[in-house]
Parts: sequence; C-alpha cells; structure tokens
Amino acid sequence: MGKLLSVFALGGLNEIGKNMYAIEYGDDIVLIDCGNKFPDEELLGIDLIIPDFSYLEENKEKIRGLIVTHGHEDHIGGVPYFLKKINVPVYATRFTLGVIEIKLKEHRILRESTLYEINSESEVQIGELTISFFKVNHSIPDCLGIVFNTPEGTIVHTGDFKFDLTPANQERPDIHKMAAIGNKGVLLLLSESTNAERQGFTPSEQMVGENLVGLFMKAKRKIIVSTFASNISRVQQIVQASEKTDRKLALIGRSMVNVVNVAIERGYLTVPKGMLIEPKETMELPPENVTILCTGSQGEPGAALSRLSTGNFRDVEILPEDTVILAAGPIPGNEKNISTIIDNLYQLGAHVIYGSGSSFGLHVSGHGYQEDLKLMLTLMKPTYFVPIHGEYRMLHHHLLLAEAIGVKRENIFLINNGDVIEVENKIARSTRTIPVGSTYVDGIDVGNMEFVLRDRKHISEDGLLMIILPMSKPDAKMLAEPEIISRGFVDNHFSELRKGMIGIITETIEELHAENRYSWNTKKKQIKKLIGQYIRENTRKRPMIVPILIEI
Amino acid sequence: MGKLLSVFALGGLNEIGKNMYAIEYGDDIVLIDCGNKFPDEELLGIDLIIPDFSYLEENKEKIRGLIVTHGHEDHIGGVPYFLKKINVPVYATRFTLGVIEIKLKEHRILRESTLYEINSESEVQIGELTISFFKVNHSIPDCLGIVFNTPEGTIVHTGDFKFDLTPANQERPDIHKMAAIGNKGVLLLLSESTNAERQGFTPSEQMVGENLVGLFMKAKRKIIVSTFASNISRVQQIVQASEKTDRKLALIGRSMVNVVNVAIERGYLTVPKGMLIEPKETMELPPENVTILCTGSQGEPGAALSRLSTGNFRDVEILPEDTVILAAGPIPGNEKNISTIIDNLYQLGAHVIYGSGSSFGLHVSGHGYQEDLKLMLTLMKPTYFVPIHGEYRMLHHHLLLAEAIGVKRENIFLINNGDVIEVENKIARSTRTIPVGSTYVDGIDVGNMEFVLRDRKHISEDGLLMIILPMSKPDAKMLAEPEIISRGFVDNHFSELRKGMIGIITETIEELHAENRYSWNTKKKQIKKLIGQYIRENTRKRPMIVPILIEI
Repeated sequence: MGKLLSVFALGGLNEIGKNMYAIEYGDDIVLIDCGNKFPDEELLGIDLIIPDFSYLEENKEKIRGLIVTHGHEDHIGGVPYFLKKINVPVYATRFTLGVIEIKLKEHRILRESTLYEINSESEVQIGELTISFFKVNHSIPDCLGIVFNTPEGTIVHTGDFKFDLTPANQERPDIHKMAAIGNKGVLLLLSESTNAERQGFTPSEQMVGENLVGLFMKAKRKIIVSTFASNISRVQQIVQASEKTDRKLALIGRSMVNVVNVAIERGYLTVPKGMLIEPKETMELPPENVTILCTGSQGEPGAALSRLSTGNFRDVEILPEDTVILAAGPIPGNEKNISTIIDNLYQLGAHVIYGSGSSFGLHVSGHGYQEDLKLMLTLMKPTYFVPIHGEYRMLHHHLLLAEAIGVKRENIFLINNGDVIEVENKIARSTRTIPVGSTYVDGIDVGNMEFVLRDRKHISEDGLLMIILPMSKPDAKMLAEPEIISRGFVDNHFSELRKGMIGIITETIEELHAENRYSWNTKKKQIKKLIGQYIRENTRKRPMIVPILIEI
Repeated sequence: MGKLLSVFALGGLNEIGKNMYAIEYGDDIVLIDCGNKFPDEELLGIDLIIPDFSYLEENKEKIRGLIVTHGHEDHIGGVPYFLKKINVPVYATRFTLGVIEIKLKEHRILRESTLYEINSESEVQIGELTISFFKVNHSIPDCLGIVFNTPEGTIVHTGDFKFDLTPANQERPDIHKMAAIGNKGVLLLLSESTNAERQGFTPSEQMVGENLVGLFMKAKRKIIVSTFASNISRVQQIVQASEKTDRKLALIGRSMVNVVNVAIERGYLTVPKGMLIEPKETMELPPENVTILCTGSQGEPGAALSRLSTGNFRDVEILPEDTVILAAGPIPGNEKNISTIIDNLYQLGAHVIYGSGSSFGLHVSGHGYQEDLKLMLTLMKPTYFVPIHGEYRMLHHHLLLAEAIGVKRENIFLINNGDVIEVENKIARSTRTIPVGSTYVDGIDVGNMEFVLRDRKHISEDGLLMIILPMSKPDAKMLAEPEIISRGFVDNHFSELRKGMIGIITETIEELHAENRYSWNTKKKQIKKLIGQYIRENTRKRPMIVPILIEI
C-alpha cells in the first residue's frame, strides 16, 4: 500500500472563524492557518475560541510546518497558542509575519519561534510535497493562495480572496498563474465561501477611495474615520484623501497604531513626511486640517470610536459639525453596538456617515461574491471540490456554484471540521472523522471549560443560593441556624423566603435523622430538591443551590 | 393661572420598545400605550422590560384611562403589569382588545379589568379632553392615530403607521380625515420615527402576497412559512396562496394559534371552511397539499421554526425538497439566531427562501419610510413637533424631515423619556424632567434589579469563590480548615490554587489576631483583598469572592 493523502479541517467549516486546515501525506503534516474566533455572548466570560489541537498534539512528530495565508485574526489568532504546544516553523509573507510577530511578542514567544518569509514566487519542499503560491486580493496586504503538488495530484487552497482587477494598491491577482495551475490539472480545490450567498462581483476597493475623497472635500471641520486597522489599502486611501484636503493624520487605538506601523516599516503604506501627528495635537490644529483614523468600527465597547462617542477619550474630543465616517460594514452580531455609537455621535452634534454595507459605498467586502467564486472555480477546473471557510448555508451555496460551472455533484464534499477526505489512486473519498472540538481561552485557562460555562450560564440567569449548615461531628446535630446567602437572585422579599427555607431545612434534617439517615449526600440531595421546589413555586426562578455541610 | 397641559413619555424615546406616552391636563392624565421591550443579552436572566410606573403610581388618582393604538408587544406588553398597579379603563379597537385579552387572561386579571371598544369613528370625553381617532396602516389590523382636542389646542399622536394605498385588507388610511385635522390646526404632533433613516416610500403589503403566490406555485412539496403572528394581512395572503395551490393549512406556535383565532373570531381573517388542519395531519396528506404557518421567524430558540429546523417538533418533520419561506425581516440583533436556523434547514435538505429585508420581496415594513413620514407631517402641518418611537439617530433624522417640510427648528423637541413638554398660552416649552427608569421582570420579581444584575454579570464573566471560615465564638479561633468552593471559575489547577488560598487565609487570620484585630468585617475585607490579588495574578480572572464567617 502506498502513502495516504488526507485533507481535513480543524476549524473553519460550518463556522466563520478559527480557520485551520491540514494536508497529511504519509508521515508529513502541513498545516494551513491557525485562527481564532470571537465568542458569542452566551460563552460567558470567554476571551477567545481557538481550534482544538488534540489530534495535532497526538501526531506532533509528523507536523512539519504552518503556512499562514494572510494576517487576519481568524487565520492567525490561534498561532501563539499553537506554537506554545507545538513549535514548528511558520511560513508567511512579509506583511503577515509582521502582524504575527506582534502577537508572538505579546505572548513572549517571539524568540523561540522559527519564522520563514515567503512570497508568491517561493517554493517550499516538505517531504514529498512541493508547495508553491499565487497572489490573491483580499482586504489586507500580501495574501496567498497555496498549491500543493503531491504524488496523488495537485491540491489548491485559495486562502481568502476576491478578484479586484483595479486594486487600490496595484497588486493584481495572479490570474495567469491560476490559469496555468488549472491547465495542469487540479485534483482538489479548497475555496473560501464567505460571500457565496451574494450575487454579482465584489466591487473594487478603489470605489471606497473615490467616495472618501468626496466626503473629505465636503467636511468643514475634523474628520474621524473608523475602519479595520488591517485594511491597509483603505488606510492608504484615507492618507491620500487627507493629503488632498490638507489634513494631518492621527491614529487612535492600539491595533491601528501597531498594524499601521508594521505597514509603514515594511513598505506597504506610504505616508507623507510630517503628516502623522499625536492624538493630543489634533485639538491644537484648525479642525479643517485634522483627520483621525481610529479602531472600533464594529462598535466594540472600549475601542477608540466607542470611547470618542461618549467623550471618554482624554486627548481628543468630538465637537459639533465634526464628520464621523464609518468606513466598514457591520460584521453580523455587531449591529446593536454600532447603532449605539451612532446615536451617541449624533448627540455630540457630529455628522455621521454610515450605511448598510456596500450599498453606501464606504465599504467593500474582501470576500468574493458569487461571480468571483465562479471565476476561481473556472480557472482551477478541479476534479474534486471542498467549499471551506463558511457557515453551512454558505458552503451549500458554494456547492451550487461549483455544480453550475461543471464540477460533478458526487465530487463535491460538504464536510465538517474533523471529517477526513482521503485520496488514493487519485480517487477522493470522505472516510473517517477525527474528533475535534473548540478550545476556549479564559484568562490563562485554556480548555473546553464545560463545567465552568455551565455554571456561569445557570447563575447568570437564575442566581445562586448558598446554604451553609454547621453540623457537629460527634452527634450530627446542627450547631447553629443555617446561613443562607444569595447572589444574583431576587431583589425583593428575600427575608420572607429565608424564613421559609430555614423551616424546610430544619425539618428535613430532623426527619432524616429520625429515620437514622445521616449521610451527607442524602442531606444535600434532599435539601437541594425541597428548597428548589419551594423557590420555584414562590419566585418562578431556578437558582443554583449549593448546600455546604461544615462538620466541626 | 389656568390649567397646565403637559406631554411626556414614560418609554419609547431613545429606544425601540416599551412605548408609553402621557397627556396631562389639569388633574386628568390620559395614557397612550403600555409596551414592553425584550432585554439585551447583557440583562442576564431578565424576562422583560416594562416602563417605570413610579410617577404614575404617585399620581394614581389623576389617571383616567389608557388608550392603546394597536396590538403589538411594544405597545401592549406592559398592560397587565400596569393594570395590576393602577386599574383604569383601557380603550382600544376590537382586534387590539382581542390580543390584550389574551394577556389579561394569562395574568388572571381579565375579570377585574374595564375594557372599552372604540373605532376610528369613536369620540371619548375625559375631563376637558375630547379624544377622537383616525385609521392608519401598519402591520397588524385595526390601528389608530389619536387626536386630543384640548383647550390649548390639538395634539395628534400618530401611533405606528405607514401609508399603504393598496393595503391587502382594503382598510385604507383616513387621509381625508387627517387632512381635515391638519386644516383645523395642529398645535403639537407626536409621530413615530422607526424608519426615519430609510429613503423613499414603504412598499405595499400586497407586494408580499404576489411574491408568495409565485413561490407557492413553484413548490413541489410541503411549504413551511414563518412570519409575525400579528401580521394578519400577511396571514390572509398565505391563506389565499394556499387556496390557489390546493393546500390545507396547519398552524404551529402558541402565539400563531392565539392571534389567528382572535382574527378569525372577530372577523379580520377569512379562512375557507375545512382548510385548517391539525399539525399532525400534515404528515398524512400528500406533501404538495400542505402549508404550515409557524412562529419563530426571528430565530427565537424554542419557537416553532427553531424546533422544526432541528427535528425537535413531534408532529411535523421537514423533509428534503420541502420549501421553507421566511416571510419576515430580521429585527436587529436576531441575525445570528436566524442564520443558525437557515443552516439547519439546509442540512435537512429543504429549499430555504430568505433574503435581506424588503429587497427580497417577502417582507415589507409596517413603519413608514421618509416619504411616508413627510406625508404625515405635511397633512398635519403642526406648529410643534416631537419625534417619538425610535432611537436617537431615528429621532434626529425625523427632525431633519420635519425641518424640510417647514416646521421651525426651534419648535421641534428632541427629548428623552421623562422630559416634559408644557403648553401655556399655546406656547410649548421643554421644562422639567420626571425621573423615569426601566423596570425589569424576572420571574415574579418586578423592579430595578440593580444588585441582582450586577452580581449575575460579575459571576457570569469571572465566576465565584466562596470561602467559609468556621470560627469559635468564645476565642475567635478557626475551628477547621477554611472550606473553599468555586462555581464558574477555573477548570484546571484548582487544587493548587486552593492550597495557596488556604495558606493566605490562615496567615491573614493569625496576623490580624496577633494585632488584636478581631472584627469580622476586617477579616472579610482583608481576605477578599488578598485572595483577589492572588487569584488575579495566577489566573488573570477576577471572580466574585464571598467570605463567610460562621461563628459557633
């Protein structure tokens, strides 16, 4: 039997976020991306979600490297956690490495990490895999698609992409190279699906620049623009609009400062000499000569725009007739927080320019729409296709697009994280499943947090009742009245409820003792049950009940 | 000095939800609407938000009645809570009373409530206020605008409205009556602002009906439609599309059954004889002869559509090639839950028809867009204008519309809940502010829940640590090792942390005693502080720390 070629995802399927894919050939595993995902509000107190590395830890000795397609959080946010477990070389472009290095510094593991800079012309040989790359457009500089030449055939992973034929940074997609790859024959294509529900072709980033210039011309006082820090093409266009209208530029927000600095240092962003000023200088200049570029376009509480909108930023104040431009579409789930900020900005007397997604012309997506996806499918002409990077409905729509351009239905795999596609004699099959879950980061705790989360959820909805029973060790008598303490439970009538509960507890203990039942467990169970009933009937709530027997 | 005319809101300004407005003239207060609002996810465990009735309770003897403009939750959801505090007559139209009665029955106060049926031709005299009405279109039957003829002039409250000139139920808006009211002179207009950000004219409900028929014709198996139960015009169109395509109709979901029954009984909905069937009968009929109409279009977990989408509904199963139509736009904040349902439906193999709001033609808003709002302002020609029913940015845009049709800027009041507009000698001024907050419903507890919510929030993010110290009463010595119990705190390394904590506690008590400091409070404070530091350094979390001294 020859070596087996396997492809699977550790994250990114049936979800947006924590992308991580693996190509395994014989005894070599090459990983693609290692992202994080931001928790839903129901994951109480959790900071981050990262892929579950258990399978990788079990196969540590096979892992040869991690290739990162681009520098967005959903592709790099898990890297420091991964490298702490499995320290293998990381391959990425110059800009991507810049943002990864910021993370590794924060986690204090930059020194022991091995980072290799690659570009679209690089070739990497790992075991029998020959790995090459092609340039794609997205909403961050220096993005790659990846080609794996394997003895079984060619596998292509698109990374995140759109086709921007007039990109603001003049970095055109490698369409001719993609055509050549397709011509040589692609066995299996993994292509991203984020916008598979949206018809048409993604608009070009240049459109945003043109609209920004119009708004900058009209503004009579300070301009505050909020956008994604990593969208360097958009930042470049904001720099240009500021230059045209004779404005200095201040940056607010840690990630904006960090990423813009990486972009300037590494040659991805050109800012005229003397244009950048400190935030506090903005209040000394005439307002018509000031642009402020800040983080917080997703309404994140605590980020720069949110603090500016409530007057809680020390060095800069938004004043009446200032113009605030939200040059970013809302990521689903953030609509409410963004609306609150817009309300607050209006209350400060600002002009607020916002709109629903691309319709307003101040944001374009970095993810290809249906026509972009069809163009990629057409160029690659794959035998097998796995839509990746998306929730189920997106993968489903991407499947329909692949069928439409001629991929056979039975050659398209709609799979889950952990489902393995195995290729043998150029035939691909969905065979086994590796168990993969989610790993939560909670402070310095990293794990599945099952019990912690269950308890937080329970208490957050119904509160908690602690019942402390001091019992005498020798004769198992109650040494004092039970102490009952509540947190997050009812606001009113607690003293009445307490009386009722003390009665029930005293009676329960007496009855159990009368029956010669002295076990702690029996007492706890019985108290939990009876107090639970009593509270439910009297308050319609189901607090967590924690009986604690103290034996003295 | 003559009597004073005052107008204020107890809810509905700078928010969507819990609408409640008051007109006070001399010793008479008339209230308009009493809605609820659904809590954000950060209001942990809270069931509902209702207006704060404190001012009304203090002025109980002045309150003459509650007029309800229409039967949506954000206008009637607080009614039972209000009537339990202040039992005054309720005035509403036949359909609105129908849905109010369902609520009063649930709260077991229907019998002691006084309900007066009115219609657009009614006239109600309360003290010196002559109250009349006009018909408006919205997304529920039988909606009213209200005219208060007062000795100081006319006040108009629009209720929620759009101008649908071809309404599906043929109930046209009273435009001629509105014109006449405007001609006689309106001192103050209160008009709703929900869609003040949206350009153009709201599309007619009939458009949805036409699109539904098209989809019904194409569907080859069962059709499942989800929409708002109270949108009886849409339900009527679904009935008609089912009739055209020879389908029987089953209703799923408590509110769907309740509201449809009210509509049929009171003559607002016509269903052909024999068309309605029980849910379990749908699986026995040929699938092409079945329509299912269900609740849950907002993705509410536990509602009919959510349960159907996960195969958790006993009597009905969604099968491959069934068609599921979401005939409702997402209310902001619900996008994620709706997406999850769509994903699940696709996984069942269903065709899912959904789209972003009105663009897809399966939903139209019941709230007027900018042109509708301008038409109302034009018809009423008010001297003074207060935009109501909306968040700040909506009120702000409505202000711009009023200015555009010629209301003077200084005669437009952008006010908050509790701000009072007083009219004297036909001059309106924003004078004083009544303190109004929000009231939370949590099980049977009703109040401001400040401490309960603070504790729930704290524990939900960082968990809780209980430290129980059994102390001897006579000599203040520790009687046993401290008991440390955690909930919702770390998953790993708890036993190490416990050792560290016990060391700190024992030391602290010894040191305090060595200094002759025996006060319980000092001990608790010191333990809280030192344990807090220790935990923060070792876990980066800040759990709630509850030290409990038990004296025996």
